[in-house]
Amino acid sequence: MLDRMPSPSTARAPSTARGSATSRRILDVAAGEFAERGIAGARIDRIVAAARTNKAQLYGYFGSKDGLFDAVVADCAESLVAAGVFAGTTLADSAVRLYDEYLRRPELVRLTAWIRLERHPVGLAFDRSTLEPKLAAIAAAQAAGEVRAGDPLDLLAMVSAMAGAWSAVSTTYTATAGDPETDHERRRTLLRESVERAVAP
Amino acid sequence: MLDRMPSPSTARAPSTARGSATSRRILDVAAGEFAERGIAGARIDRIVAAARTNKAQLYGYFGSKDGLFDAVVADCAESLVAAGVFAGTTLADSAVRLYDEYLRRPELVRLTAWIRLERHPVGLAFDRSTLEPKLAAIAAAQAAGEVRAGDPLDLLAMVSAMAGAWSAVSTTYTATAGDPETDHERRRTLLRESVERAVAP
Repeated sequence: MLDRMPSPSTARAPSTARGSATSRRILDVAAGEFAERGIAGARIDRIVAAARTNKAQLYGYFGSKDGLFDAVVADCAESLVAAGVFAGTTLADSAVRLYDEYLRRPELVRLTAWIRLERHPVGLAFDRSTLEPKLAAIAAAQAAGEVRAGDPLDLLAMVSAMAGAWSAVSTTYTATAGDPETDHERRRTLLRESVERAVAP
Repeated sequence: MLDRMPSPSTARAPSTARGSATSRRILDVAAGEFAERGIAGARIDRIVAAARTNKAQLYGYFGSKDGLFDAVVADCAESLVAAGVFAGTTLADSAVRLYDEYLRRPELVRLTAWIRLERHPVGLAFDRSTLEPKLAAIAAAQAAGEVRAGDPLDLLAMVSAMAGAWSAVSTTYTATAGDPETDHERRRTLLRESVERAVAP
């Protein structure tokens, strides 16, 4: 309510290199602000100041606070794919890569937690379309006899939860990059073996 | 800041049956308010009105908003133990009971998510003392040759994450009591088998 906004339909992508750089700065700053404070708690004033821009430009690019949040989430999802997290040959590989990515960028998981708490408390956390490549990969591994039978969405939920066992939504222990490397190595080994066992045919 | 409070040291347990009933109403209402809106977002005014009491009485029993939140979390933890969730003979039993308890009372997991986002972003989510009984049970099962070797806290983090695969912090799909029973049964079976396989010696 503090952040009045034009309708999302007015949002437009930047058309200059300088505009692209500003849009990039806004996304990076906003990722931190949303991860720290959530959707309701984030302040556009703070984002604008830290990204060295102004509200008119921010709303021009992203339409609204909700539009900016959506753009941040999509940007994070893209960076996970770009990091090759899901390019592993097995679900266990992907899980261990996710463990490391969550250490490196805890804001990825915190953003998902805010989505759950403030936006989608039940059902899918993200659009089905964003899950389709992973579901198709699981179905292909099942067809090849490498992964147990079962609903691919069930398996994805299970393996994702295992990968997040020490993440920023852990109900037990949230690991940090500062933990001793022996702890990380011990957890990676347990994670890899647990996923391998859980999804074996 | 909107809710000024006396110091926690002034908190005292109710001394009459009527006081106990009021304290109980406050805890029940506050669990819903905190689960919905978090620590910063919860409003003492709303809790007081819904619990048919007043601020002086609430602060008398719980000391502060933070004291009330702590009491709500402790109360939820006790109710999980009372529900026999951890009395199962195996980790797989406990995991399946947790799946059902999370369906019945999604606020349990949402409260933990708020703890992560607003209070303890890293390390243990709860005091080590609250985990000790579970860690001891895992160590005993290991000594009996029923559970694989490894750090009991690692195993607890893994099994808890698996039990929460469809919970209110799922990064994939949050189940509800309204989902078809065939879905629940399919997930319970996968959860049970996955935990059994993951923790087998």
